[in-house]
Amino acid sequence: MIIVLEPQATEEQIKRVAERVREFGFEVHISRGVERTILGVIGDRDKDQLAQAVEAMAGVEKTVPILHPFKLASLEFHPERTAVRVGPVVIGLENLVVMAGPCAVESEEQIILTARAVQAAGAQILRGGAYKPRTSPYAFQGLQKEGLKMLAAARAATGLPVVSEVMNPRDVELVGEYVDMLQIGARNMQNFSLLREVGRFGKPVLLKRGLAATIEEWLMAAEYILSEGNYQVVLCERGIRTFETMTRNTLDVGAIAVVKALSHLPVVADPSHAAGKWRWVGALAKAALAAGADGLLIEVHPDPERALSDGPQSLNFANFASLMQSLAPLAGALGRRLEVPSAQAV
Amino acid sequence: MIIVLEPQATEEQIKRVAERVREFGFEVHISRGVERTILGVIGDRDKDQLAQAVEAMAGVEKTVPILHPFKLASLEFHPERTAVRVGPVVIGLENLVVMAGPCAVESEEQIILTARAVQAAGAQILRGGAYKPRTSPYAFQGLQKEGLKMLAAARAATGLPVVSEVMNPRDVELVGEYVDMLQIGARNMQNFSLLREVGRFGKPVLLKRGLAATIEEWLMAAEYILSEGNYQVVLCERGIRTFETMTRNTLDVGAIAVVKALSHLPVVADPSHAAGKWRWVGALAKAALAAGADGLLIEVHPDPERALSDGPQSLNFANFASLMQSLAPLAGALGRRLEVPSAQAV
Amino acid sequence: MIIVLEPQATEEQIKRVAERVREFGFEVHISRGVERTILGVIGDRDKDQLAQAVEAMAGVEKTVPILHPFKLASLEFHPERTAVRVGPVVIGLENLVVMAGPCAVESEEQIILTARAVQAAGAQILRGGAYKPRTSPYAFQGLQKEGLKMLAAARAATGLPVVSEVMNPRDVELVGEYVDMLQIGARNMQNFSLLREVGRFGKPVLLKRGLAATIEEWLMAAEYILSEGNYQVVLCERGIRTFETMTRNTLDVGAIAVVKALSHLPVVADPSHAAGKWRWVGALAKAALAAGADGLLIEVHPDPERALSDGPQSLNFANFASLMQSLAPLAGALGRRLEVPSAQAV
Amino acid sequence: MIIVLEPQATEEQIKRVAERVREFGFEVHISRGVERTILGVIGDRDKDQLAQAVEAMAGVEKTVPILHPFKLASLEFHPERTAVRVGPVVIGLENLVVMAGPCAVESEEQIILTARAVQAAGAQILRGGAYKPRTSPYAFQGLQKEGLKMLAAARAATGLPVVSEVMNPRDVELVGEYVDMLQIGARNMQNFSLLREVGRFGKPVLLKRGLAATIEEWLMAAEYILSEGNYQVVLCERGIRTFETMTRNTLDVGAIAVVKALSHLPVVADPSHAAGKWRWVGALAKAALAAGADGLLIEVHPDPERALSDGPQSLNFANFASLMQSLAPLAGALGRRLEVPSAQAV
Repeated sequence: MIIVLEPQATEEQIKRVAERVREFGFEVHISRGVERTILGVIGDRDKDQLAQAVEAMAGVEKTVPILHPFKLASLEFHPERTAVRVGPVVIGLENLVVMAGPCAVESEEQIILTARAVQAAGAQILRGGAYKPRTSPYAFQGLQKEGLKMLAAARAATGLPVVSEVMNPRDVELVGEYVDMLQIGARNMQNFSLLREVGRFGKPVLLKRGLAATIEEWLMAAEYILSEGNYQVVLCERGIRTFETMTRNTLDVGAIAVVKALSHLPVVADPSHAAGKWRWVGALAKAALAAGADGLLIEVHPDPERALSDGPQSLNFANFASLMQSLAPLAGALGRRLEVPSAQAV
Repeated sequence: MIIVLEPQATEEQIKRVAERVREFGFEVHISRGVERTILGVIGDRDKDQLAQAVEAMAGVEKTVPILHPFKLASLEFHPERTAVRVGPVVIGLENLVVMAGPCAVESEEQIILTARAVQAAGAQILRGGAYKPRTSPYAFQGLQKEGLKMLAAARAATGLPVVSEVMNPRDVELVGEYVDMLQIGARNMQNFSLLREVGRFGKPVLLKRGLAATIEEWLMAAEYILSEGNYQVVLCERGIRTFETMTRNTLDVGAIAVVKALSHLPVVADPSHAAGKWRWVGALAKAALAAGADGLLIEVHPDPERALSDGPQSLNFANFASLMQSLAPLAGALGRRLEVPSAQAV
Repeated sequence: MIIVLEPQATEEQIKRVAERVREFGFEVHISRGVERTILGVIGDRDKDQLAQAVEAMAGVEKTVPILHPFKLASLEFHPERTAVRVGPVVIGLENLVVMAGPCAVESEEQIILTARAVQAAGAQILRGGAYKPRTSPYAFQGLQKEGLKMLAAARAATGLPVVSEVMNPRDVELVGEYVDMLQIGARNMQNFSLLREVGRFGKPVLLKRGLAATIEEWLMAAEYILSEGNYQVVLCERGIRTFETMTRNTLDVGAIAVVKALSHLPVVADPSHAAGKWRWVGALAKAALAAGADGLLIEVHPDPERALSDGPQSLNFANFASLMQSLAPLAGALGRRLEVPSAQAV
Repeated sequence: MIIVLEPQATEEQIKRVAERVREFGFEVHISRGVERTILGVIGDRDKDQLAQAVEAMAGVEKTVPILHPFKLASLEFHPERTAVRVGPVVIGLENLVVMAGPCAVESEEQIILTARAVQAAGAQILRGGAYKPRTSPYAFQGLQKEGLKMLAAARAATGLPVVSEVMNPRDVELVGEYVDMLQIGARNMQNFSLLREVGRFGKPVLLKRGLAATIEEWLMAAEYILSEGNYQVVLCERGIRTFETMTRNTLDVGAIAVVKALSHLPVVADPSHAAGKWRWVGALAKAALAAGADGLLIEVHPDPERALSDGPQSLNFANFASLMQSLAPLAGALGRRLEVPSAQAV
């Protein structure tokens, strides 16, 4: 960390700041430039507390961090890439993994039908919401425990492992009993109680990026889970909030590339929530893979206009199968692999 | 709600969409313009589900809502303004209310000392965090139950009612036992499980706006609490995330004015989190009141450079007292009232 | 256009608004809902002036446009896709087009060397700045007329057509004399005097999206050029400004897909300015093509650490050649074509 | 400036970077931390070019600037505050200055009528657009030279000095002949050709902040004007673009406070463009003054619903007079002064 002093900082103030740094147990190097004096802080422990302390001191203009604050999630400190195992599927290797299914589980018939269709098209994990975070308290909130049972039934019918969202720390055990991977939604990315809980629980976690979360905050959210001993975390870029309103969110493909360089954790993308409209899902899915994503999370519904949630951004079976057909050669061109049954079989 | 059809929509498609609208129990008016056909949907129930259904239909370009989705929080449907009672203090009347105290409760001595100082300067409610949402899992997370007891001790010592944050639905009862008002932090604005829980609990709630929440989403979050029967909700604007980095967040004074026009709920502002640096807190506090805020939430610490959290944006006692002195005449010029002991008494 | 009246609008106010609509020469349909009365405005002329007039009237809550404001740039009104011819190269057909070269022309040797290298790697158009918009008045501002002559020399040496930025309406003729395509930079996207000038001049235009321009504003900027009779416009997505700072800008791949659906104009992407760092350029280049871009604009410099501008985001020759090798199979997988000399030839 | 090396940087790379710094004529201090080596660059010249050079070098992770890049606009290097004289009016002293008038000059009658009304209400400068930057090429573009003559006639009739926008470097002399202060609009904040031209011309300049301009970029735009020898620059905060759509822009009151601390130039605010709706103009005007603005720029029209531009955000005469009455006591409470004729006189 660097501490930048104000141009008018007195010798006395500089001395006090340097002492404070040493009190925290760090070494300090003073460097006097033409227009500013700066202090370099040296030591390998977290400097966040120190930064806050000195920024509140007289004579200090600002502090500048040199290192990223995440450690366990960092590729620098953990140079071996993590592969996350969800049932029989592994995310983070050469093979791309597509997770597909409806926004919300609506009935056993709907989820089993969808599971079979997405499996036939090449998806390897079934997604489906039993607990739904909805902007409106009057909107459909999910079938909850009944929905979880239906997901388990769909797994039994197809062999596909299942990912589903958990919103409340109280529900982690219940949801975790039924599903293979726990999803933390964008709105809960900094719900630290929930992060700790899924960290302690130990099952694989799909951690969506918050609507307005920086890459650093996203990796710090992962750090919460990792710091509880659970390293089975997959990051999911799902679009950020910007001024543009023609798409629901702005898919940040740059973040996919940056995260692959900063962290050892796998990254997938959710083109459905970024797009907000099924028409744009295909283009965003391809862009995410091209940017380096290890997989995709796609909303698929047997009859989008009858969907209880997110119908406009859901693909129907035919469109999903057709998208998967177009992704397979793309994967090859990118040096990855995506196994998709031949079109005739669909 | 208006349904806009695509230019190439067929008569058959238009007919199907109109039927779907009627299936949902609404009336429909068809209007054929030169370049688009549009359907007007008439009926006084929530149309969110319908919007999703028809947006997924062939021939539909988009839907356009006409009404805001919030009802209970809406001034239109509830034309009498709400005043929220926190212990002996009322928020939302002519009197402006200042809530002040440390970011985090650190010791009984610290919190009682601060309570006395902010009370002497004119604050009417004591704030202080016992459960702290921190970006880093390695940062100080609050004294939790011990902190709550210290807050209660400070209330006993001064008579000031107390507001403190709750992060976990599991803790609502415990926190609610000790404090007079429950705070929902920005990161939890769409933690719907938590919103429902504080709605059911019934004590007054201070609902901070999320970092990237639209005004509409913020009022829908309030709607979650109100829909559980708890109307004692105070909204708190605390800055939104933008591209500008010289302040920690961008205080959205326009949102204060808009919310006062759209909702009957009181609105206060948190200039400390918006500023991120104590130097800017005064200017933002004044701007918020000038825009129509009913009060302020300000971080004050006896020794900001020894604070365990948010020291750089905390005012010390002298600066807080001086700010309060400058706010009193401002309140008068705005047609409001702020009772501040004369400067000599401080 | 829809006019939404306030809930308390009187009959007299509604009548006045309807009359105002008719004064403007439009038809009006009144529709009385349960909670709002709305007026539908019918007619095929621009309604922007009307919208402003009625929004200022008593009793009006808001107006809602139904149609996009662009006409000449719209695929709906001009269903045949435009291909733009730049010298011997055509942008907007099956073949993808890569434009490459240095941020700034620095010397004849530098630009000819670069032209040869990017041509050998498969680029079809040479880019290079002679007039540079720089945030600081103290930074290198480009070689201006001398730079244009060097670009012409590089074209003579290689046969590559040339694209270069023009910043000042006064320079359009001069720049247009030397180059094959005029670039409008992001900061000038709404420099309407300049847009009209390049519209009148008639040479092909590369129109970059502004840092904070909506897709609609971007297409309206194109409309300025088209409305002067110049249809040879290529749009260029180059990243938008968001809160994220790890990349210089956020490449909006969704915008590429949306623009291809809304407009008949070709779209290319500039991964270099979006990335801000050469490390991320490859990932963003691939993502842009996968999202449907018709080509790329890439910064290449013989010695990035000696570049007078944008060195950090420039590829050196080897990295550019290697990127081009990886783009060729990608193009094929996307159903497009990119002719790249075999690796040995580089 | 600080240069942060990559963790795996070799001794050879560190040596090369240090040499490059010295080649540029700076001193370098090497500091070896536990996890990173950093180089401190010392010298009082601009380091932008150096930053770009070393960021492109192998082994370099990033550079971190320590000083702001603006010099002439900086309060640190020019500690005396600048007051800007516009005809008989001075901006930047204790007296607050209100500039008011229509978005666009429409007729001599309209502008003289408005000039008299805003003068009677306490405005000291007349604003009015003769050249209008409009998103649509089909919208009213201003009366241009005729409009300038009408502004001059209004000045002759009332004695009010006049401010008006110039968009094209070619028009600076013409506009400058008629008006007392040249306005640079938000869309042209980084139109560097135009900035240099008004810098050379020498009349006072009102420099609006760009829609997505950082405070630093805004001050660098001012630096362009100052570097041509023209120090008569007033900055104008007019709202930035964010995700929120209920107001046209988000007035950044924090920026007003920050700019007053970083620069010696006066700052005013434009609440009309920030609000987008006349209903919110009053609240934003008050907030801007409370945050420390030296004045306001407000749109006033004799009949907003007949306005050719920006009617919805224009105040009529009565609303403007009433707002001015409420601003006078506010100014007093803020330790400033605003002379407003007594209400009876209006």
